[in-house]
Amino acid sequence: MSELRRDPVTGRWVIIAPDRSRRPEDFTPQPVGAMDGDMCPFCEGQESIAGRELLAWRPGGSVSNGPGWRVRVVANREPALRVEGTLGEDRGLLFQSWGGLGAHEVVIESADHRATLATMSADDVWRILWAWRERLRDLRRDIRLKSFSVVKNVGAPAGATLDHPHSQILALPFPPHALAVEIEGATSFHAKTSRCVFCDLISGETADRRRVISSDEGALAIAPYASRVPFEVWVLPQVHCAAFEEAGDEMLRAVAERLRDVMRRLDATLVAPPYSMMLHTCPTESADHAAYHWHLEIVPRLRPESGVAWEGGVMINPVPPEEAAQVLRANSL
Amino acid sequence: MSELRRDPVTGRWVIIAPDRSRRPEDFTPQPVGAMDGDMCPFCEGQESIAGRELLAWRPGGSVSNGPGWRVRVVANREPALRVEGTLGEDRGLLFQSWGGLGAHEVVIESADHRATLATMSADDVWRILWAWRERLRDLRRDIRLKSFSVVKNVGAPAGATLDHPHSQILALPFPPHALAVEIEGATSFHAKTSRCVFCDLISGETADRRRVISSDEGALAIAPYASRVPFEVWVLPQVHCAAFEEAGDEMLRAVAERLRDVMRRLDATLVAPPYSMMLHTCPTESADHAAYHWHLEIVPRLRPESGVAWEGGVMINPVPPEEAAQVLRANSL
Repeated sequence: MSELRRDPVTGRWVIIAPDRSRRPEDFTPQPVGAMDGDMCPFCEGQESIAGRELLAWRPGGSVSNGPGWRVRVVANREPALRVEGTLGEDRGLLFQSWGGLGAHEVVIESADHRATLATMSADDVWRILWAWRERLRDLRRDIRLKSFSVVKNVGAPAGATLDHPHSQILALPFPPHALAVEIEGATSFHAKTSRCVFCDLISGETADRRRVISSDEGALAIAPYASRVPFEVWVLPQVHCAAFEEAGDEMLRAVAERLRDVMRRLDATLVAPPYSMMLHTCPTESADHAAYHWHLEIVPRLRPESGVAWEGGVMINPVPPEEAAQVLRANSL
Repeated sequence: MSELRRDPVTGRWVIIAPDRSRRPEDFTPQPVGAMDGDMCPFCEGQESIAGRELLAWRPGGSVSNGPGWRVRVVANREPALRVEGTLGEDRGLLFQSWGGLGAHEVVIESADHRATLATMSADDVWRILWAWRERLRDLRRDIRLKSFSVVKNVGAPAGATLDHPHSQILALPFPPHALAVEIEGATSFHAKTSRCVFCDLISGETADRRRVISSDEGALAIAPYASRVPFEVWVLPQVHCAAFEEAGDEMLRAVAERLRDVMRRLDATLVAPPYSMMLHTCPTESADHAAYHWHLEIVPRLRPESGVAWEGGVMINPVPPEEAAQVLRANSL
């Protein structure tokens, strides 16, 4: 059974999940590329081993847990958190832990093992966002789950252990520290100005142009002002919306279109780079719906992070975002 | 010229350093191992190319910038920050940047290209900490420099680009976010209890034993309660001391001894793992010397971080620290 532990100094939460795979060879660096072996559990026809189906897009009305799907969400076979977990046991001032309460799901984004966000159709990309939204709408009915992380890791340098296109949904009983800091920043900006900092960013960047990668009426892709790594990209819906699960089909279509567009630019510029993509969305109980604005952050993982970067220190980025945006504006598949 | 930029939402600072090497091939992942090429700029005899000498331990009284040294500190040849930088230009509510004010130095820890903290003598390890301390004492005379990061990255997966044993000193005009959060946590604990949270941790862990790796009267090595990765280790001086540069020779000797001991245990257990080591020390202007306690954090870099980990989200650690401590207590070179 896993456990959520709080660092006594920083308040940082960590999931200690000893029931996941843990043989001695797991502690040594794995060779890059040797990930899938002979059989991929996420390919069509392997539904029985991928995990219990929670949601699927089945155009022909095919049967649950069988083939004939376009996108599929399953329970993680080795979940870091479970809805059967229990809420906290406070061991006192220094050590706090909670039972591993939460949810951990896998979104299998395509039946095609080699599909990528750059090669999929805009409809295919939209269906991924649709699956995220439907699962978040279902998960937030459990009032103990307060915050959602959706993460897509592509390539071994980004921490991916399977090549088949997939993303992970984590539901947590509290917002993780990085999200709490972001909410706090947005709330403080809103208190000062009565405006959403992301809406201001959208109009400021659109007027400035230097960091804009591409845009239309529905969504904007930028190289953020304080980009942490070369070619970091944010994709934001143009219309204010705090919680991803509140987004309508049209907003998701605009963001899917923009996401596919920037992935085609990144692939053309960096030759299919490893990357991590994170959905940033408002925690369920936040009162700050006027202050926050959901968006996607895409972080190419071109080099291993140094120790300073690792612990959230000051990152050193050799490529100014204005230059990254210029290159990405000019290149696409 | 580099620039310090502040993210408008989170307040996270990033160094945009476009004058560092930036050819197109820098954006693609580098092969692991092909780091030093034929000639190492940090080896004895290459002093003229390593950079201007700022400090050295020269037992025979050898000449500056020549051979005959045990440890040597040089200016980084491609510094991310410079003391010639200028303080801020506030561009308004959204975008803040400062000139790249700071310092960026390299500590060449041994003349022996293949030396490691596990194979060096305790005296050799002590001389590294001595060099850090002497440089911090010198740097803090520049009152514009408020916070120091000392980082040692070993192995390509930890972001190291040279094999020769070395560490880096960064001096910044403000504390980086992660340190500010740690200081805040320690200050808040001190406000509640009038005690140092790290001193409490030392006595609590010493009494509990389960997470203690090794200890003596001078220093303690533990697997921290909320370890973020397998085999994370903290080394703390037993006696309260907030700022590393205030430490006396005896305190540094005790920590050096403990550091060498845990590196011998990590090397025996994980077979010379890549790792990052970070010195955590109180910012120069902090009033919280009663609340904070300097220490070293050692993070083995066994697997690439997933996207959740990358942005400071909730980490998933498959090895409980109690188990890591048990294994490390039993194994050493």
